[in-house]
Amino acid sequence: MRLADLTQHAGEWLRGEGPMYDVVISSRVRLARNLAGMPFLGKCTESQQQEIEQRLRAEVLAGPAAPEMFYVDVRAAGELDRKLLVERHLISRQHAEASHPRGVAVSGDETVALMINEEDHLRMQVLRTGFQLAQAFEDISRIDDSLEQRLDFAFHSRYGYLTACPTNVGTGLRVSVMLHLPALKMTGQIEKLFHAASDMHLEVRGLYGEGTEATGDFFQISNQTTLGKSERQIVSEFVDTMVPSFVQYERLAREALLAERPAAIDDKVARSVALLRSARLMSSDETMYLLSLVRLGANLRRIEGMDLKTINELFLLTQPAHLQRILNREMTPDQRAAARADYLRRKLNLN
Amino acid sequence: MRLADLTQHAGEWLRGEGPMYDVVISSRVRLARNLAGMPFLGKCTESQQQEIEQRLRAEVLAGPAAPEMFYVDVRAAGELDRKLLVERHLISRQHAEASHPRGVAVSGDETVALMINEEDHLRMQVLRTGFQLAQAFEDISRIDDSLEQRLDFAFHSRYGYLTACPTNVGTGLRVSVMLHLPALKMTGQIEKLFHAASDMHLEVRGLYGEGTEATGDFFQISNQTTLGKSERQIVSEFVDTMVPSFVQYERLAREALLAERPAAIDDKVARSVALLRSARLMSSDETMYLLSLVRLGANLRRIEGMDLKTINELFLLTQPAHLQRILNREMTPDQRAAARADYLRRKLNLN
Repeated sequence: MRLADLTQHAGEWLRGEGPMYDVVISSRVRLARNLAGMPFLGKCTESQQQEIEQRLRAEVLAGPAAPEMFYVDVRAAGELDRKLLVERHLISRQHAEASHPRGVAVSGDETVALMINEEDHLRMQVLRTGFQLAQAFEDISRIDDSLEQRLDFAFHSRYGYLTACPTNVGTGLRVSVMLHLPALKMTGQIEKLFHAASDMHLEVRGLYGEGTEATGDFFQISNQTTLGKSERQIVSEFVDTMVPSFVQYERLAREALLAERPAAIDDKVARSVALLRSARLMSSDETMYLLSLVRLGANLRRIEGMDLKTINELFLLTQPAHLQRILNREMTPDQRAAARADYLRRKLNLN
Repeated sequence: MRLADLTQHAGEWLRGEGPMYDVVISSRVRLARNLAGMPFLGKCTESQQQEIEQRLRAEVLAGPAAPEMFYVDVRAAGELDRKLLVERHLISRQHAEASHPRGVAVSGDETVALMINEEDHLRMQVLRTGFQLAQAFEDISRIDDSLEQRLDFAFHSRYGYLTACPTNVGTGLRVSVMLHLPALKMTGQIEKLFHAASDMHLEVRGLYGEGTEATGDFFQISNQTTLGKSERQIVSEFVDTMVPSFVQYERLAREALLAERPAAIDDKVARSVALLRSARLMSSDETMYLLSLVRLGANLRRIEGMDLKTINELFLLTQPAHLQRILNREMTPDQRAAARADYLRRKLNLN
């Protein structure tokens, strides 16, 4: 398994399968850990950073899952490869753009990504398609337990796991889901959801994490609290109460739209298909927005002949780095807009 | 020839033929006249208005062109018929919405429309497809001469023809062209043209005359001066200098766009075709805007398989009153948006 093989399919987080897949695109669990006896990354010398990278790299590639893992030396990787990893949600933007020694170990199915020397020495992530938070939590706990047998993580008996940023102290756990909420947006109810999320101490962000605008109709919702609750408490609140209620809001909004204004939905969906199949210039933001409406139409069975697997793949394959990798050439944004439109027309006019 | 027959074709002003038809949609000449010895319309009693209407109706239907003319008693006509006449540019909005005795005589080919009791007792109009102002002026002069042999028009030896509004005093002549200027609009040069027009004492308006927004990329440009120049001077300035220079600006802008950003044009045109062929809800404003871009694409030979005659007809046939007449039912704006989209899909997905 190599990085170059990744461009040919959708990646775990956009497979468009799994429980509640009509609303929940993907589920993600992340743990932050630091090696005891070493300064936090920002306080390290470069040789210490190198030491951490080498030590953690050896450990994460030595576990029982090692045969399925491949490692990317992110500092040595080219810009396009780093962007590719960001687009696939395998590393963060910050990790891609830094300059110190760092890397990521990824499982062949992309459900597991272990970032070394991101904000913390080790950031473990499990990503699963659809609403599979409980499963993702089981996976990450197993990985954490296995690594903890061989590594000494910085831990304080009162505060819990110590992290570079105080917002992660305690469990070091962050759980999040990527939701597709077009009906709440169309009916103007999305603001209410933002307020509800804020009341529940949840954070709402765009597709690519912190500091990004919510693109199209996708919203990433995550916990803000890592301290004072057990890991299982955090996960079970999210799994049992919060996510199901958001899913329910969106489903009700879709039903109401269909009952009251079916032509409004059909119009938006039909226009989206037509534009994706016809435009000559297309930005990745517009692509995302239009694909999300096509996805809605397919989920509501308002259109036929659109293959959901193709639609889900296109979300990712039309992103800047993926597009350049697939077409095997570097391009300016203008060139990409033309190439993206061509690629979409080719993919969507097959039948 | 009856009013009901008009809904099946495009009407003279949107036939899309004639000289410089790539930019000049239509040419229009209008003369304002009032009967000597009668007060202006606003000062008339209703019986005087009736007298004027009867007298002028008899005269306009007695001339040599009479066999080709049909008369619509606008006061007696239904609302839909009156709107239909407005959409075909055969009467003004004011004429449609007034309540006093009034009417219009129209030639079978719709090039001639003689409005009785609009702002003046008689408003004569000749409308021709493409850039045919000189021809239109010859036509209207002949009609004016013929009527003047039988009627005494209010005329002052110093000021010329007297009209209800001082802006028309003198020749009572207004000449105008409807221009299609998408490239000047796309390249942001349209404001310069507005300034130039203002410097030349020209007025720029939307599709339906005074007080209307310029819809899509259509602009009606007309003279503001009726006093102090002869009729032939006004027409020849317009014909020989002004209109050709505007046409030239637009053609240069189109060439520059094609040379520098062909994908930008192709994208706009392809999106317009796709939306017209796919949308489920469509307003008449959006229809106008999209059709104008399709027209541009066809004129620049950037698309094939679109019949220009169909496109030109659709501009008019998708207007609210036409649509309701064609589909033979009265509709709310929401119902029209759905019906219009259906009609467009049917018409544009034939081949």
